[in-house]
Order: sequence, then C-alpha cells, then structure tokens
Amino acid sequence: MMRLEDYGEDVVVGRLTRLLTIGNQVIVGPGDDCAVVAGPRRGEVSLLKTDCLVEGVHYTLEAPAEQVGWKSVARVVSDFAAMGGAPEHLLVTVALPPERDMGWAEKLYRGMNKCAVRFGASVVGGETSSVPRGAPGLISVAATGRARRKLLVLRSGGRPGDDLFVTGRLGGSLAGKHLRFLPRVEEALWLAQRFPLHAMMDLSDGLAKDLPRLAGASGCGYLLDEEAVPRTRGTGIREALGDGEDYELLVAVSKRTGRRMADNWAKRFPKLKLTRIGELRVGVAKTMDGGWEHFAER
Amino acid sequence: MMRLEDYGEDVVVGRLTRLLTIGNQVIVGPGDDCAVVAGPRRGEVSLLKTDCLVEGVHYTLEAPAEQVGWKSVARVVSDFAAMGGAPEHLLVTVALPPERDMGWAEKLYRGMNKCAVRFGASVVGGETSSVPRGAPGLISVAATGRARRKLLVLRSGGRPGDDLFVTGRLGGSLAGKHLRFLPRVEEALWLAQRFPLHAMMDLSDGLAKDLPRLAGASGCGYLLDEEAVPRTRGTGIREALGDGEDYELLVAVSKRTGRRMADNWAKRFPKLKLTRIGELRVGVAKTMDGGWEHFAER
Repeated sequence: MMRLEDYGEDVVVGRLTRLLTIGNQVIVGPGDDCAVVAGPRRGEVSLLKTDCLVEGVHYTLEAPAEQVGWKSVARVVSDFAAMGGAPEHLLVTVALPPERDMGWAEKLYRGMNKCAVRFGASVVGGETSSVPRGAPGLISVAATGRARRKLLVLRSGGRPGDDLFVTGRLGGSLAGKHLRFLPRVEEALWLAQRFPLHAMMDLSDGLAKDLPRLAGASGCGYLLDEEAVPRTRGTGIREALGDGEDYELLVAVSKRTGRRMADNWAKRFPKLKLTRIGELRVGVAKTMDGGWEHFAER
Repeated sequence: MMRLEDYGEDVVVGRLTRLLTIGNQVIVGPGDDCAVVAGPRRGEVSLLKTDCLVEGVHYTLEAPAEQVGWKSVARVVSDFAAMGGAPEHLLVTVALPPERDMGWAEKLYRGMNKCAVRFGASVVGGETSSVPRGAPGLISVAATGRARRKLLVLRSGGRPGDDLFVTGRLGGSLAGKHLRFLPRVEEALWLAQRFPLHAMMDLSDGLAKDLPRLAGASGCGYLLDEEAVPRTRGTGIREALGDGEDYELLVAVSKRTGRRMADNWAKRFPKLKLTRIGELRVGVAKTMDGGWEHFAER
C-alpha cells in the first residue's frame, strides 16, 4: 500500500485529476487557480473555484473566528482575482464537532459574509455538517464567478524571456497577515485591463512551490533572483520563499510590457511594491525546496 | 457557552444563514434543496448546491471507495432532480489524512467521475487537502446546474389539501442502498414536465425529518398515514421514517393532479412504487421523532 504522504501533493492531484472525464464546455480544467467554462454571455467566461480550511492546518481555534471566516472567503476571491475575474455566488460548507461553541460558528459566518459583500459576492447557500466529537473542523467555500474573456489570464501563458513580477512583500504571513489579507482584486483587474499579461497566479503555497507551478504550466524553466525577492520586515529569504499564504500576485509579462507596467504601477499603487524577481527561461521548471506541501511528514 | 449539540441542526442552520446578506440575483437562498439564482438564459435558472460526506458519519472505510465516490456525487444529483433540474459542473474537495491509501483515493475519484458522467455532468476542478494524521476524511461536492424556469419545483409551494406522495420504499438504506442509489432524475423530470407539482424535495434525512421541513417551508401542517408508508422489506415503520438516506422523492400535488399522476406513473414506471402517504393541512408543521440529526448526542 502506498500512502498519500509517500507522494508529493502535486503528484496526488495529478494522478487523481487524470481520472476525470472533462466535458466539452470546459476551457480550463483542474490545474489553474479556477476552472473556466464557456460563459453564458458573449465575451464572458464562467469561473469555478473551491477551497477549504482545515482546523490545525490552515487555522487554529486561537484565531478570531471572524478572521477565519474572512480568510476562508478571501482565499477564493484571491483565486478569482488571479484569473482577471471576480466572484459572484458562494456556497459554504462548515463541518464542525458537536462540542464547538455556537458563538464561534456565528462569528465565522459573519466574517465570511463580510468578505463576500466587500468583494461584491453573495453567499447563496451551503451546508452545516457534524464531524465526530474531537475531530478537527473544516470550512469549505465553493464559488462561481466570471471574467471578460479578453481579460482572462491563465498560469500557462508564460513565454521564455518573460519578466516575473510579484506584488507586495513575501514571508511571515503567520504573524497575522494570513488571517487579515485583502485579496489583490483591484490590482489584478487594473493590470489585466491595461497590459497584455502572459500568465498570472496568486501565491498561496509560497513562491518556492508556486513559481515552479507557473513556469511548469507555461512549459518554461525559470531564473529566480533571490536577492530581489521583496521580504516582509524581519523575515529572511527562506521564509519569503517558503512560508506561504502571501496571497500576492505572481505575473509574467514580456520585458517591454514589464518596464511600462512598473512605471505605471508606481503612480497608481504608490504604497504597494511591484518587484521584478526573475524571468522565465527555455527549459524545464525545477522544483525548489520550501513552500507548503500537503500530505508531507511534519 | 452554548455548544452546537445544544441546538437542533435546523436551529443551527437558521441562526447561521440569518447572518448572510443575500444578493438581488438570488431567487431562492439557503433552505431548499439547491440555491436558485437568475439564469443566464431566458426561461432558465441556475442552481447551486454543495454537500459533504464525513468519514465515520456518512461512510466508513469498510465501504468500497468507488461507491463512496458515487454516493458523494449522487447525493448532489438527487438535490438537482428534486428541484426539477440537472447538474452541469462539479467541484470536488477531498480532505484526507496523510496515511490514507493512494489507491483508495483513486477509487473514490473513479466513483465520483462515473456518477457525474452518468448524469451528464463533469468534474471541472476541486481541491485535495490534508487533515491532521488520524483525523476523519471529508469529501465535499459543490455543483452548478440549471432548470427550466417553468419546471422549477420548490419545497415551499405546497398548499393545504395537497396530497403527499413518495417514490420507492423507505428505510433500511444502511444495508447498502445508501452507497449505490440511483438519483431519481428521470422520474423527477418526467413528473415536473407533465404535472403541476406544488412542492418537491428529496428524502435524505428520513421522512420524519424531511416531511416537517417540506410542510413547514410551505406554511402548512400535515397528516401522515403511517400505515401507507411504503417500507423496504424487513423494516418497520420506525426505520422507514427514521433511517434516512432514502434519496426518494417527496411530492405535494392537488388531489386532482394526484389521481392523474398515480395512474400515469404506474404505466411509465411499473417497477417503482409511487405511494400516497398523507396530505398537507392548514396548521403548523410539528416535528416528528426520528430522522437524522446532525450535532445530536449519539
């Protein structure tokens, strides 16, 4: 018997999703930030995304419940942003042990609703289930959304020679940012509307995990300038690459677009850094040490 | 501190969903089998549903993984059927402990895919997450679908004097049916296309829980003819009302429609019973003993 922990997370996902029969309306199946299906309206696509938080993995009971709720929805919003889209309708699943405080569950719901409303979406339904006494709780958010077809940005469109940029600063998210972050919706839409973005994704598992994913999806290798990686104050390069839960954007654009983008960015978002951290290369995307790995020994 | 187990499941759901801000595109929010939002196409509505299975609550590791996968998708398909609709795109979340067998996860996925394909839907994405070592696994399926607006059937349209019908036989699902059932998609669509159905839902928590829910949503009381309830061979009335996971349809129609419906049904589905089990009344829907209760002491 081979256990899930004997494989890397990406191998598990790859082996499982290979078993699926993908319908002909599906434009992008498993593997990007969201799934993309043919849109009901001309010039639009529908986006679908689901994401879950596990107690003891993604949050602890010491964290304020309202922030846990915010985070559960904000993670999904961040994925829509990374495709150049926005969420519309949300379904939330809350599976908790019977001994959990009712007040905790209500604060959780308030936080989810607050984040949905803040980004123009609405929780339309969901499920409340029990897990066995003493088992960790789980919160899952599934969402539909849309993007203008012209603004849709995938992970897979990067080209050799593209410059790579990240927004904000990386690392140290566990100090609090992972519970309170603002998804980069405004920034992503601004970028997608003004510049021909080749590829984009949000950084949830750490640059060490996510950069090889974007490069790999684009069929490229990459060169990372570690010195250039913008670090949260008080963190080293190891944390900046590996902590994860940054929820910043990673973008690939042509060198020419990159220069123009950096100039305009500084005027529009003077308080948020946009930093060139390397480039895509001809080659194969090697894995890097660090970053968040599900199923790994800890 | 009040714990979730100090409240009934319906109270927990009611208190939590009250906290949500429902958008103006939402036709039916939390409380029915699916959420209903304005459809992209004229004459259609979009349906949204999420549902989860918890290890040790909804399935055990002794159950064949492929059947667990089938069940996780079939439950959602059953909810779409109960609204007069059908599923389109599915997102699946599988949260498992690291020690779980990779082969088990693959069989699970095969079962999910098989059920999706069988009912014309497609798994377009999802998430694989770890739960802490030793914790129970969880499988969540979120889906979008659609219904013709004219065929949409809610729980809330029942009227005093309506006859109540159920399909099939109730009780004893744990003997195997709960893992292998065929959602009543064909039957529900046939009914919705031919008869003015006032209300419909699928029976997942047992008639004892679900009949008061349909009556309550319709603002009615009810009279149940316990003698008439069609029981699975070898089960008593207690099991028929309380075992749950029947995934049969509960339908409310006018008495006149009921007679016509029963006649035609016998010709179209000679192998499946359709049984009148009572009627809706003026009054308040009292709760019944039995049926599946999340968060309850067990």
